[in-house]
Amino acid sequence: MKKVAVILSGSGVFDGAEIHESVLALHAIEKANASWHCFAPNVEQLHVINHLTGEVTEEKRNVLVEAARIARGNIEDVAKLNVDDFDALLLPGGFGAAKNLTDFALKGAECSINAHVASACRAFAEALKPAGYLCIAPAIIPLIYPENVKATIGNDIDTAAGYNALGGQHVDCPVDDYVFDEQHKVLSTPAYMLAENISQAASGIDKLVAKLVAIA
Amino acid sequence: MKKVAVILSGSGVFDGAEIHESVLALHAIEKANASWHCFAPNVEQLHVINHLTGEVTEEKRNVLVEAARIARGNIEDVAKLNVDDFDALLLPGGFGAAKNLTDFALKGAECSINAHVASACRAFAEALKPAGYLCIAPAIIPLIYPENVKATIGNDIDTAAGYNALGGQHVDCPVDDYVFDEQHKVLSTPAYMLAENISQAASGIDKLVAKLVAIA
Repeated sequence: MKKVAVILSGSGVFDGAEIHESVLALHAIEKANASWHCFAPNVEQLHVINHLTGEVTEEKRNVLVEAARIARGNIEDVAKLNVDDFDALLLPGGFGAAKNLTDFALKGAECSINAHVASACRAFAEALKPAGYLCIAPAIIPLIYPENVKATIGNDIDTAAGYNALGGQHVDCPVDDYVFDEQHKVLSTPAYMLAENISQAASGIDKLVAKLVAIA
Repeated sequence: MKKVAVILSGSGVFDGAEIHESVLALHAIEKANASWHCFAPNVEQLHVINHLTGEVTEEKRNVLVEAARIARGNIEDVAKLNVDDFDALLLPGGFGAAKNLTDFALKGAECSINAHVASACRAFAEALKPAGYLCIAPAIIPLIYPENVKATIGNDIDTAAGYNALGGQHVDCPVDDYVFDEQHKVLSTPAYMLAENISQAASGIDKLVAKLVAIA
């Protein structure tokens, strides 16, 4: 059975990993007859958002501890992720990918990336093991892969420009499909960058994950 | 399009609504061509559990605010739930159902139930509108329906005895099926009381929700 490492960024669309995308991704991995193994960075969240009001709160929360809610406790520090143990990598979206794994949401083209996340993602890239990035997570791709790496963050002009400013080559993509950079074995799908409901998000995620596992 | 009201109990298996079950349930409602509408009680959680270590923390969190993470902000106070606006009701599981909606996890047969949750659930029962309960949430059923109402919480002997002690009639059920009390139009499925992965939980939830929407 192929093994897929999944890097989560918290639990909740506005300050962590998008919950629907994360569950759909884990379910898709099972449906592709592979197993999922969750990881997250052991760092404080950029901030905590009250998801009812949209307001930033005074709370402090840890990315790994909150991501454990999605993983039902079955999760490890991403610093322990060893590429040799896995066949493929998957990163769901949510603002956590652009606030906790990187600071792309704040700094755009001048963003930085968590060292352990970068190390894990680069290890898959160097081993030419396939990796999938959902929603806003593809903003990480140009930080990992060589210039002009192809990926999608849907069809929003500003976000696509942000992706290109990082050195990538953005490709518009509908919600029910994915973009595949064959040279670097990296896949991306818009998910909630475009999806208006869970079924739409699932349509692209299921397709991407099936391909990810097939080429792993 | 039929409308299904969904009552969540937080966000996270050990102190709130089980996240996989909740997302699978919302997705199943969409797949049945119905729409979902989330609610939760505006009360403090019984406690907050660190899902990485399993330990109780010093934090305070609000059930409605945390449930909003699963609903991407599209959620209302369950006190505002008007049965006239909906065709069916659905309650996912997770310890939140037995800690925040009721205190069944602490008090068993002597448990009590949040007044607004009870009021909403009873309104569906009295209107003979169908209701589905997942995982441990069926412990709520005997608090709402007449004696000997049939439901399942899987096949765990102690939990089944707890259900019977509340006045219900427990029926053993495999993870990929559901129990249907036709007289009271109430459905239940074991989900993570038995499921060992997301696909197993989905098998029963998808079946239950399809039936729930069909008879609504």
